[in-house]
Amino acid sequence: MVVGTSWETLLPRLHEIADLAGALRLLHWDQAVMMPSAGGASRARSIATLEGLLHERLTAPEVGGLLEELGGDDSLDTDTRAHVRVLARDYAKATKVPPELVKELAELEGLAYQAWTEARPANDFDVLKPHLERMVQLKKEQADALGWQGERYDALLDTYEPEMKTAEVEAMFAELTNGLRPLVEEVVDAAPDTPEFLTRTYEAAKQEAFSQWLVRKLGFDTHGGRLDTSPHPFTAQIAPGDVRQTTKADPKDLMMSIFATIHETGHALYEQGIPERLAGLPAGHAPSLGIHESQSRMWENQVGRSRPFTEFMLPHLKEHFPEELGMLAPDDFYTGANHPRRTLIRVTADELTYNLHVALRFEIEIALFRDELDVADLPDAWDAAMEKHLDVRPESHADGVLQDMHWSIGALGYFPTYTLGNLYAAAFYAKAREDLTDLDADLRRGDGSRLLGWMRDRIHSQAYLKSAKELGEEVLGEPLSARPFLDHVATKFRNLYAGS
Amino acid sequence: MVVGTSWETLLPRLHEIADLAGALRLLHWDQAVMMPSAGGASRARSIATLEGLLHERLTAPEVGGLLEELGGDDSLDTDTRAHVRVLARDYAKATKVPPELVKELAELEGLAYQAWTEARPANDFDVLKPHLERMVQLKKEQADALGWQGERYDALLDTYEPEMKTAEVEAMFAELTNGLRPLVEEVVDAAPDTPEFLTRTYEAAKQEAFSQWLVRKLGFDTHGGRLDTSPHPFTAQIAPGDVRQTTKADPKDLMMSIFATIHETGHALYEQGIPERLAGLPAGHAPSLGIHESQSRMWENQVGRSRPFTEFMLPHLKEHFPEELGMLAPDDFYTGANHPRRTLIRVTADELTYNLHVALRFEIEIALFRDELDVADLPDAWDAAMEKHLDVRPESHADGVLQDMHWSIGALGYFPTYTLGNLYAAAFYAKAREDLTDLDADLRRGDGSRLLGWMRDRIHSQAYLKSAKELGEEVLGEPLSARPFLDHVATKFRNLYAGS
Repeated sequence: MVVGTSWETLLPRLHEIADLAGALRLLHWDQAVMMPSAGGASRARSIATLEGLLHERLTAPEVGGLLEELGGDDSLDTDTRAHVRVLARDYAKATKVPPELVKELAELEGLAYQAWTEARPANDFDVLKPHLERMVQLKKEQADALGWQGERYDALLDTYEPEMKTAEVEAMFAELTNGLRPLVEEVVDAAPDTPEFLTRTYEAAKQEAFSQWLVRKLGFDTHGGRLDTSPHPFTAQIAPGDVRQTTKADPKDLMMSIFATIHETGHALYEQGIPERLAGLPAGHAPSLGIHESQSRMWENQVGRSRPFTEFMLPHLKEHFPEELGMLAPDDFYTGANHPRRTLIRVTADELTYNLHVALRFEIEIALFRDELDVADLPDAWDAAMEKHLDVRPESHADGVLQDMHWSIGALGYFPTYTLGNLYAAAFYAKAREDLTDLDADLRRGDGSRLLGWMRDRIHSQAYLKSAKELGEEVLGEPLSARPFLDHVATKFRNLYAGS
Repeated sequence: MVVGTSWETLLPRLHEIADLAGALRLLHWDQAVMMPSAGGASRARSIATLEGLLHERLTAPEVGGLLEELGGDDSLDTDTRAHVRVLARDYAKATKVPPELVKELAELEGLAYQAWTEARPANDFDVLKPHLERMVQLKKEQADALGWQGERYDALLDTYEPEMKTAEVEAMFAELTNGLRPLVEEVVDAAPDTPEFLTRTYEAAKQEAFSQWLVRKLGFDTHGGRLDTSPHPFTAQIAPGDVRQTTKADPKDLMMSIFATIHETGHALYEQGIPERLAGLPAGHAPSLGIHESQSRMWENQVGRSRPFTEFMLPHLKEHFPEELGMLAPDDFYTGANHPRRTLIRVTADELTYNLHVALRFEIEIALFRDELDVADLPDAWDAAMEKHLDVRPESHADGVLQDMHWSIGALGYFPTYTLGNLYAAAFYAKAREDLTDLDADLRRGDGSRLLGWMRDRIHSQAYLKSAKELGEEVLGEPLSARPFLDHVATKFRNLYAGS
């Protein structure tokens, strides 16, 4: 690392910022996984306090001054330039929004989330409505404070998927939904009823034991991480050398547990692949949520739900559940892992229809921010969009517009990154298959090491040295499109169900 | 709480200090209980960073100014006066020692601890010696910076046992060792060989299950806390509503697990008994380590190792270990839990001889700080003191002067608080028995609720509103002495072994 005085002055500040951010991630992880229930109130205050300190440190005028000096310094090496670029981005985002708006948003997020937890079980959109109206208003102010050129929603999208524009995402969704619609019609109605083994009960402790085995098999390093359970599976890098993932084990849903585990392992393998020299510094993480999600989705869907990998998993799963699965044939397990349906709920949707759930959320979000839709009309817009995309209509708001918490916590512009992740996953995997001959043979014996090596080399090791779009184009040799994903699901689901 | 402008200005600063200190306790708890091994280096840096921030916040000149204003404010209520008094104490300790000395001590502690981890297995005092010489030198400088009136060691003792003086502790140790010497001679040599059931192996998972049951039975509230395992059992209040204790389960040492669990539960019950209105503020904790240890030792020894409580535990323990303990008689279990021996190691010493191990450490420490002993002569001084107090001589430094880590981490003045805890435990328990008729009947059915209520009322609820000495005298009606402890062990061990 080439060092100049400004960089040397900045570095201890960066360490302080990283250590505060890491302590915050531990407070959150512990809250979800370990904390006794009565600790909730004091934990909320501790988190707010440390967030305040982190914000104070990040927005210190000295940081701005050092960034200005370093921005014009041509002698910096590639790594340092990337750190300066990413920190300047974070600094701008943290300083452009007026403190009163930041505070108002934080308070509203608490209130709106609380209202959502009441609105959903009560099936009553009106409980959430006033909070959501205020949220959209404040998010518009936030977008304007952050600044935008094309359209307002760009500023929100940029928070999660830096440099990606609304118009680009819109074009990809158009290609995607146009390609999916006929395929869904062709395949879904031809798929059989839910296989019998998916309706059985599977002891949670045995599911957890299988997950502990599976993450190690997939290459997760438990000297530098751990797997626990939590109500909502997630992955967090606490600090370099300490990556934590969670899964859940619902006795009524064996598949949820297995694929949540593989999904989070994808995130965790990415975090464990960030080079030591970058970890804990501004560019030492993924360049976007979409790129991060590409890794979780690829291991979950392209690998985990493939014919060869399901074939590998089944005998090991049978060791834990000899009575329940003893007689299950590999073909039936594979079919069970890929069982497409027109459903109402995003989080349990299959690989084929999942992105249609995201498409309707994206359409609604841009309509809200283009002033083409009022919050009051959200429930109707939701139901109409469900009919358009999936040909089903929710019988309740709980299973419709109220199903996700995202909007209540101000995560507007977030949903499209799920689909970007799916598209990147299919595109990266297709590219890897070109390079790695007979990858299916690896997967059939549960060996993901060549694939992991490819991802480490091209993606994980790049961290945030380039933007997501630059990285994607470099790896793919062309801009991201929906084509590889459409090819993947068309081949897989036609082979499985077309004409059956 | 009576509020004035200065107090209102100080309060958000106190919350910030409390939240940073709580985050640090979580970082430490997690490091000992959860953290994957590769996270060690980044965790060490995070802890150092947050300690730096905490020190910065605590020593801010504004805090000093506010304390000065509040110190002369007669309108404050009792709670607020206590908070101001405790914070002023912490502020003075944090500001009186020059930053360079703080830094030098922190670095030396790291080096000396590392040297100790090498010196002990190598049985080589010379590896530790230069670090310990420097440590004693720096600790003298620290004591002088903190200030003292009677003698230098007072300043070190005051860190752990506020307001207690060396001369007072010396007098108590004299009374204690004079009383113990004839008793040990009378009893220990009459005790039989190690009971056979203590030499068996007990599955760790079953020991843990028993501990999980036992802590609840003793009144530990698991909605506001949790029990885990760690190599060195400890208890930490992370934040109000979140008290965590750990135990260990060594298949070769059933008793260690049971009594470590009861010991830590004593600490944890204390923390859970701090009133909500005080928790998280300067006076919202125990007034001294000795008072804290009184609660752990009382539940461990006066309750846990009593005839009625061992009688209560045995059938429940047999449910977990029917083969190993099925035939064990209550008398033999009680005897096994109280098996005095002349041993070399403090941490595994029995209730009767334990304080002799502490006495020799205290004597050595005061000799070092009175310039009556050089570090170079420590090994000889140790071996001589072991012969004097326990009539045994270590065959190695590993089992002698190198057995404890305390000195390597700069914890000089800490050891005597273990014995103060034992003396307070016996004195408080004797007092409680005067008030609570037929307490043995409660313990025989495993019901510690009346005893806990008594301790909550007189000790836990007082937190640090008074100094340890004031609190002790108020509860006991007289100053602390070794007499109640000597009466306790004399009665118990004479009944068990004298003349056998």
